[in-house]
Parts: sequence; C-alpha cells; structure tokens
Amino acid sequence: MTSTSTSTSIAFVGLGAMGAPMAENLVKRQFRVTGFDMRESARDALVAAGGHAAASAGAAAEGADALVLMVVNAAQARAVLFEAGALAALAPGASVILMATCPPGEVEAMAAEVTASGRHFVDAPVSGGVTGARGATLSIMVGTPADSFALVRPVLEALGDKVFHVGEKPGQGATVKTVNQLLCGVHIAVAAEALSLAEKAGIDGRLLFEIMGGSAASSWMLRDRGPRMHEPDPMVASAVDIFVKDLSIVLDAGRAAKTALPLAAAAHQMFLAASGLGHGARDDSQVVRAYRALNAKPANDP
Amino acid sequence: MTSTSTSTSIAFVGLGAMGAPMAENLVKRQFRVTGFDMRESARDALVAAGGHAAASAGAAAEGADALVLMVVNAAQARAVLFEAGALAALAPGASVILMATCPPGEVEAMAAEVTASGRHFVDAPVSGGVTGARGATLSIMVGTPADSFALVRPVLEALGDKVFHVGEKPGQGATVKTVNQLLCGVHIAVAAEALSLAEKAGIDGRLLFEIMGGSAASSWMLRDRGPRMHEPDPMVASAVDIFVKDLSIVLDAGRAAKTALPLAAAAHQMFLAASGLGHGARDDSQVVRAYRALNAKPANDP
Repeated sequence: MTSTSTSTSIAFVGLGAMGAPMAENLVKRQFRVTGFDMRESARDALVAAGGHAAASAGAAAEGADALVLMVVNAAQARAVLFEAGALAALAPGASVILMATCPPGEVEAMAAEVTASGRHFVDAPVSGGVTGARGATLSIMVGTPADSFALVRPVLEALGDKVFHVGEKPGQGATVKTVNQLLCGVHIAVAAEALSLAEKAGIDGRLLFEIMGGSAASSWMLRDRGPRMHEPDPMVASAVDIFVKDLSIVLDAGRAAKTALPLAAAAHQMFLAASGLGHGARDDSQVVRAYRALNAKPANDP
Repeated sequence: MTSTSTSTSIAFVGLGAMGAPMAENLVKRQFRVTGFDMRESARDALVAAGGHAAASAGAAAEGADALVLMVVNAAQARAVLFEAGALAALAPGASVILMATCPPGEVEAMAAEVTASGRHFVDAPVSGGVTGARGATLSIMVGTPADSFALVRPVLEALGDKVFHVGEKPGQGATVKTVNQLLCGVHIAVAAEALSLAEKAGIDGRLLFEIMGGSAASSWMLRDRGPRMHEPDPMVASAVDIFVKDLSIVLDAGRAAKTALPLAAAAHQMFLAASGLGHGARDDSQVVRAYRALNAKPANDP
C-alpha cells in the first residue's frame, strides 16, 4: 500500500449499519473503495456514494491493497478470507484489517494463517457505535506489529479519531475490545441491580438515577441506559442478545487466558435470563426485567 | 426549631474527619453549635472555630432544637441516643438528624423509638467525602415525613448543596446511600477485574484505563481508582475494609428486603478476599490484589 489514498485500493466487506458509513468515509477521503455485501441495496448505496461494488467478496478483493472486514463475527470473517477466496485475491503484501468484534483466540488463529500467505494482519476492533461510524469518530484498538500499523494508519484515521496501538500481537486489540464489553455489560447490569433494590424500598427510580448520575456512583452506562429502564419497551439502541454474545466472548477469553471473572460471569447470567424470559431482542436496558423477575417489583408501584 | 439560625441550637456528636468541618459549617451559618467527641482535641478545635463544647453527648443535647449524629455506625448512634441520654435531654419537638451511614433496617427501628418520644427523626446520610464536608457541597439523601424535612432543611442546606428528599419514611435515605455504595463497590471491583484480564494478555494497564476512561465503558470510579491500581501502595483515600463493611450493609439490606443482588455479592467476596490477604487497611483500589492473587499477573510484567 502506498502512502497516498488515491492510489490505495480498498476492498470493504460487510456494508451494514456500521460498515456502510465507514466505507463511505473512506470514499470521502479519496480511497478507491470496492464493497461487497450480500444485500444488493447495500452495494447500490455504496456506488451512489462514489464507491464501487463487486459481485462477491473474492471479486472485491481482486488486487486490492487492503481488505477491511466489518462482518458479524469470526466465522463470517473466516468464510470471506478462506472460502470466498478474498485472501488469495489480494495484492501481494496487502493488509487484512479485521474490525468486527471477535474472540481474541480466534483473531490470533486467523492472523497466523493470513501472515503465512505473506499479507499483513491488523486486529482493529472499534467502539463508538453507528454514531461513531457515521462521524468518523470511532475508537479503534489495534493489535499488530509496528510496521503493519504504520502501513494501515491512514485507513484507520479515516474511520476514527481515537486510534490506539495497544500491542504488537494480533488478538490484543480484540482483548481490549473484550475488556470494553466486560465493563459495559457489568455497568448496565449493576445499574439494574441498584434500581431493583431501591424499588423494593419504594424509592422513585428516576430520582435515584438523577442522584447517582451526579455522584461517584455514576457510570456512562448508568446515565445512558438508566432512564430507559423505566420505559416498558424503549427503542432498541443495542439488544439484550448482543450482550449475551459479547459477555460470552468475554468469558471465553477469560477461559482461554485462565482468568477468573466473577462479576462478568454474574452479569452474563442476568442477560441470559432476560433473553430466556423472551426479551433478547429488546433494548439491553431491559436486563432490568430479569431483576424484576427475581425481585418482584412491589405491586403498588407503576 | 424556629426558622432563623441564630435562635436554633444544635448538638453535634461525632467530630471526626467528616463531622468536624460539618459542625464548623453550621457555626459559619450562625447556628449555635454545641459539639461532643471522645477526643478532647476535636472539642477544642470546634471551640476555636466559634462553637461550644460539652463534656458528654447528653450534656451537648441539653435543651437543643436539633441533634446531628455523625458517628461511625448505628451502634454508636443508639448509644448516644438511648444510653448517653441525648434523646431525653433534647427540647420537646426537637429533631434527631442521623447522617452516619447505617443499615436501612436499623434506621427504621431507631426512628420508631425516637418518634415515640415526640421528637422528629430525619434519616439523612451523605456522600461527597471530606472534600464535600469541608466545602458544604455534600449530597444529602433524606428519608423523613415532609413536615420534619421542612423543619431541618436550613440545617441540611448549610451542610450540602444537593439535598434530595427521597421519601417520607426513615430508612429510605439509608437505602439510597446503600445503593450508592453498591454501585461504587461494584464499579471499583469490575475495573480491577477488567485490568486483570487485560494484563494477562500483555496489555499496558495505564493505556487500557486511558482508552476505557474516554469510552462508554467509563465510570467515575474507574477514572478515579483505576490509576491507583498501578501503584504498589497508594495513599489511602478510603480503605478496602470500608467496602467490606459497606457491601455488608448492602447485602444485609438486600436480605431484609428479600432482594437478590448477585453482582454486589460477588464484589463483596473480592473486597473480603483482599482484606483476608492482609490488605484491609490499604486504599480500596487495592482490591486489584485479590484479582492478582487469583489470576497471577504474568512474571515478565512490572
């Protein structure tokens, strides 16, 4: 990959809620972007935004200098690389940039296969959600050798404004993202647990979160998700089942590293119970329903 | 109690790190303050600040319009009220303002005995620490009937700038304070848990907290205690054993209300283990030592 964006061709696979605006941000920065997604409408939207579309992941990767993977999980990333032929189609010395949230162990394994083919592998998961993807304000946590990092840095800086090189080993970016999800998941669950105890004592939950949000007891998640715990069915910003999955990744990472994570394990049980109670597709603030199932909100409360 | 502070006499028992500056703030607002503490030096300091001192808690309360209790725990509060004779010494219709952190159930029981004597009982625990006590910027969470609240409001507003009337029942203030400690304790423990997983993967802990502190994974406690987890023996802002006690109060409150608190229970075990390992008097950030004992930080790390 050369240092000027106009001469750098990027294959982008996975044009979903996050991937579509990310690919468009690369187009805006003058990269030559060829996208692929199973949905024709997603491919058409990229073309309308000034990019190119290919009929398959392998075709998108043909001769490209970099391949960005913004797919759903590690299984899809492997399918694109090894079954759809995208890895073999890339230019020699090209970079594979994995930005999906994947278990650290699977990222390490993928990295070994990719580097064996003579390509660079950049473990680069993101946080910041759809808002960050649209505004190019994502946080990007990068695990890759310094030379690979230097190569892809212009691409990453077109997508996020907080690019952290957290380590030389692929899997370390995924670990930091995993730790991020550990904290987020526990913070949401403990806000619901706090609300559950207060409601039993007849405390108004809205007043509770107003007080807690301005004190040392505050967290970003308490301020964001707390108010939605009082709505019967809030708009879904991120679903309960996403945390069922992400806290599974956290616990798998702990198992692989032989690291006991008692709080993450307990929080996972509560998201799992909320999903089992039929609320998996609801907003993740609704983990509070698992606490209410356990701790029966008093009948005289709204 | 009348509405002007100059004609209101206040007995103040417990002139410790929090109580001393609180009593001085009442003096500054022109209340007539008579203090008692076991330590002569504490009594002398109040006199030097313009207050009065008494030789016993009972003597301090003699004819007072209000009694502020800023003692260590519920047992001390009971001793002052019922054994040292402070309750009987108060003016008829006076107010007892309990500002120490006590279990909600014990607050309810004390309130019943105090109101049976014809006095008001105001459950009013605080948060904000020594800084808040000095600057009169405490948060005060008040559980008491509306008429009792109206009576003592000028006193409370001399001590804190965020006075919340959270409910009509004594014990509800203590519950909100309990919920505050639940959140604080879990947030400290989960920051240590997150660090533990990251260190196993060779991630620099300082960089980790820098990234997390600016993301949706942030909490007030992560930003405050996180950096101290990297110091071998940081200055003690609040000790591990304080959370051993406060999370015990949280779990007792849960037991009394028949409310399951899985995250608080797991966090309590970690503070308990840290204390059992001999670190009870260290800064509460050192709960990370319990995680390190469990999860053996790699030998090649600092």
